[in-house]
Amino acid sequence: MSSSKEYMNGHVHLEESDMYESDGKLFLTEAFNVIMEEILHKGTDSEEKVCEWKDPDQLRALLDLDLREHGESHKQLLQRVRDVARYSVKTCHPRFFNQLFAGVDYHALTGRLLTETLNTSQYTYEVAPVFVLMEEEVLCKLRSLVGWSEGDGIFCPGGSMSNMYAMNVARYWAFPQVKTQGLWATPRMAIFTSQQGHYSMKKAAAFLGIGTDNVFIVQVDESGSMRPEDLEAKIVQAKSQDAVPFFVNATAGTTVQGAFDPLNRIADISERNGMWMHVDVSAACLPYVTPLCNTSICMWPPVVCRISPVSNCYNLDLSFLQAAWGGSVLFSKKHKHLVAGIERANSVTWNPHKMLLAGLQCSVVLFRDTTNLLMHCHSAKATYLFQQDKFYDTSLDTGDKSIQCGRKVDCLKLWLMWKAIGTHGLSERVEKAFALARYLVEEMEKRDNFKLVCKGPFVNVCFWFIPPSLRRKENSADYQESLSKVAPVIKERMIKRGTMMVGYQPMDGHVNFFRMVVVSPQLTTKDMDFFLDEIEDLGKDL
Amino acid sequence: MSSSKEYMNGHVHLEESDMYESDGKLFLTEAFNVIMEEILHKGTDSEEKVCEWKDPDQLRALLDLDLREHGESHKQLLQRVRDVARYSVKTCHPRFFNQLFAGVDYHALTGRLLTETLNTSQYTYEVAPVFVLMEEEVLCKLRSLVGWSEGDGIFCPGGSMSNMYAMNVARYWAFPQVKTQGLWATPRMAIFTSQQGHYSMKKAAAFLGIGTDNVFIVQVDESGSMRPEDLEAKIVQAKSQDAVPFFVNATAGTTVQGAFDPLNRIADISERNGMWMHVDVSAACLPYVTPLCNTSICMWPPVVCRISPVSNCYNLDLSFLQAAWGGSVLFSKKHKHLVAGIERANSVTWNPHKMLLAGLQCSVVLFRDTTNLLMHCHSAKATYLFQQDKFYDTSLDTGDKSIQCGRKVDCLKLWLMWKAIGTHGLSERVEKAFALARYLVEEMEKRDNFKLVCKGPFVNVCFWFIPPSLRRKENSADYQESLSKVAPVIKERMIKRGTMMVGYQPMDGHVNFFRMVVVSPQLTTKDMDFFLDEIEDLGKDL
Repeated sequence: MSSSKEYMNGHVHLEESDMYESDGKLFLTEAFNVIMEEILHKGTDSEEKVCEWKDPDQLRALLDLDLREHGESHKQLLQRVRDVARYSVKTCHPRFFNQLFAGVDYHALTGRLLTETLNTSQYTYEVAPVFVLMEEEVLCKLRSLVGWSEGDGIFCPGGSMSNMYAMNVARYWAFPQVKTQGLWATPRMAIFTSQQGHYSMKKAAAFLGIGTDNVFIVQVDESGSMRPEDLEAKIVQAKSQDAVPFFVNATAGTTVQGAFDPLNRIADISERNGMWMHVDVSAACLPYVTPLCNTSICMWPPVVCRISPVSNCYNLDLSFLQAAWGGSVLFSKKHKHLVAGIERANSVTWNPHKMLLAGLQCSVVLFRDTTNLLMHCHSAKATYLFQQDKFYDTSLDTGDKSIQCGRKVDCLKLWLMWKAIGTHGLSERVEKAFALARYLVEEMEKRDNFKLVCKGPFVNVCFWFIPPSLRRKENSADYQESLSKVAPVIKERMIKRGTMMVGYQPMDGHVNFFRMVVVSPQLTTKDMDFFLDEIEDLGKDL
Repeated sequence: MSSSKEYMNGHVHLEESDMYESDGKLFLTEAFNVIMEEILHKGTDSEEKVCEWKDPDQLRALLDLDLREHGESHKQLLQRVRDVARYSVKTCHPRFFNQLFAGVDYHALTGRLLTETLNTSQYTYEVAPVFVLMEEEVLCKLRSLVGWSEGDGIFCPGGSMSNMYAMNVARYWAFPQVKTQGLWATPRMAIFTSQQGHYSMKKAAAFLGIGTDNVFIVQVDESGSMRPEDLEAKIVQAKSQDAVPFFVNATAGTTVQGAFDPLNRIADISERNGMWMHVDVSAACLPYVTPLCNTSICMWPPVVCRISPVSNCYNLDLSFLQAAWGGSVLFSKKHKHLVAGIERANSVTWNPHKMLLAGLQCSVVLFRDTTNLLMHCHSAKATYLFQQDKFYDTSLDTGDKSIQCGRKVDCLKLWLMWKAIGTHGLSERVEKAFALARYLVEEMEKRDNFKLVCKGPFVNVCFWFIPPSLRRKENSADYQESLSKVAPVIKERMIKRGTMMVGYQPMDGHVNFFRMVVVSPQLTTKDMDFFLDEIEDLGKDL
């Protein structure tokens, strides 16, 4: 027998494992303690900072990022873990309002650590038996909430990818020859989305070879909701240019304003024109969230807008939300109208990594289709992975539905969280976010130096802070120019102070305004009050 | 002031946090202990099972997947964690040989847990300061290993997506109008990849609207390496069909056989034809891995094939590997030839989640381009995310290079592992895998009942097990038919026994054969011996 020594090359020892299991496990355990202390204890403490600002050059020096020939000591590496934690933004902090994700759910986080440790790919039952069945179950439950007793779906790496999947499947449905022959074998195609629809629609059109010019932008009303009559006009326009309308994207909860497009009217138009209707609820929490609105702004669904003649304040009955989370209530007479239309969509994108706190990445695209369109559209039938002579039912090998090969397991975090607090618990979170956003709006209206951009229907609160020097100067020539500079200055001060984080942007003729998003269930009215006080304090000399 | 009580709806308490921080943290800590025990202690113990096979109906019942109205107790949830761990495949087990990923690196795993807990998106310096700089550093280091002192790149959700990025950027480079006008504004395009190239090329062509018929399949030699003369023939063929050749995919380490395409010759052809050359090293460990081969099979690079006239066994000097891992050695006179050609590529896909053990998902696409093509190709300039009036250098907001919006942080796990063991440590792992694969091949050749499909250049070992009933029956009419049934039966028995996992597939006229992949640094010669003994034992009555 040839001794393994023959294969040695100085330092390759084939007779022994190169891994120092006990050292590795010790390191992992100690690092876990650092994670608990530096991120989960300090990071969720509102007395601590949300972020520890360093400019890029400073931070490069502090982190010593260079990758070298030789490794470092256990102690140095633990310090690396501490440094990464220290200089990273604490998105779990109760005062992180900067993105559509925020907060922490410990059960979801447990699911994530478990997923990472199990390190498998979602493609076959063979290597992911638990996760293949779990994905099936979670997708089924999500579909039932949309109103579909059957259908299809898949977890994707983020909402933009989910939207791309929908667009590609729609294209295949309309022109199946595209898979083999490409777009040269089809007429020019037209896509429709609103001015407030997510930018991923344009990215998808470019990536799929359709081109951004073939995305027709439909006007919105003041609330940010798609105008159906303009959708019809744009369809006519597209046809006049010999483009075939095949895909309309309706948004339920726009990214900035949180507006809802009128789904039933869009569904009517889609059906009349033989188009695929997609609903992007990826900025929203659930398809059946409902507007919190006043009459002048809210368009949909009108029935939930009930202005009290006495107080003229929002008088929205939130009870449906709790029920709506229960899935089957979608079929109840009382509340069915709230989601009227979503079930008419052909596909739905939904990001549980946002308001549901499942953690990045957790996004699904759901299909009403029952003809295996998703698989037909994407399959490549790789024999090394999807052998047909396996001893189990190979329809469980769902990997060929994906455009990926290896696919990260994204269902466990959502499943474990759902098991932990139930549909009821998730519904309470949504209710609370709506109620807190409502509280914030009311408190804002009591203060002179805040001006709402509009009263959105969702948990996004868009507003300008009017600093002392601009108060009652609305009519001066440079007012808008001056106002546009307020948010960036306050944001810079805020980040450097580290007390909280909130985003700003310009939009459709509105100069820079803040977008506050209420997501985390950790929040209380105290955080809302702090938010307003802090903005005032940061801008008091402006 | 309006009391928050007005907003209460039975159970919404706006004055207090809904999160039970201490309960949550306790659960997470207890779950971490379960993860350590059930996955990392038991899962890495070769005396324990790799998998605990249950058929789907059994497993559904055991897992109780249903998501209900109300949540479960702490104790029940911990049991859920244990069940998920128990019934999942232990890819960290030393005898998991089923995929191109395997094993566990505790530093990478630490990076993954840290990433999950920090839960941020890679898109802006604002919310990911550490990770924006870290991604930049890791990409720079990877590029330098390829041989590029500058360039671009991005982490993508898996190798298939990385390949799609390359194809899309190449298309934009060739026909920039495609971004706005779509493929109707361009001539028909042609893509070239070998018979053994990864199936993601076809998926990419379909998804990008180019169509699978426009992927021209180039023949390979017996080793699985692309025949350059056939590439030229296919280019002529494409042109004769009025398709414009724009993209050639060369594979360095094919999925099944582990073959390497001849990069310099492909680069010559690409340059002559004005094509973009992409190199997919995603099944490989590093671009400069080199063939372990014998003369009759190995085509490239010939200089490293040194057959000893005495032993006629592999006589490959592995010393270059250690050096090659060192990056700068790529520029050394002695070893430069080993990667001759890779630096001539326009883009490279590389998956550190495979042989480097970074963990799923960890994939990059690297570009030689220095004109910001990646950004120009993909940008949509969303104002709510990529404000241009920020107080820091907004070129650090790299998110618009991506087709995703939220993008998972995938650099930390690789960075921390690299810091921990250095370039040198990573090189040792690769050396060891090569040496162990070589050991396995030699041991296999000593046994009558194993037959190699071919002697591949890499760490893939493809072979048939010839059971007793088929020995010396090569000339019988149903030999191939009978042989094709051996691997599935052994695989079923193997999974049910749970001792190890290895994949099989048919390929190009070869009936089902096993593909053993040596990846994990935990492995020793004992595991190789066990592997052979176990296959023999599982098939002894066939």
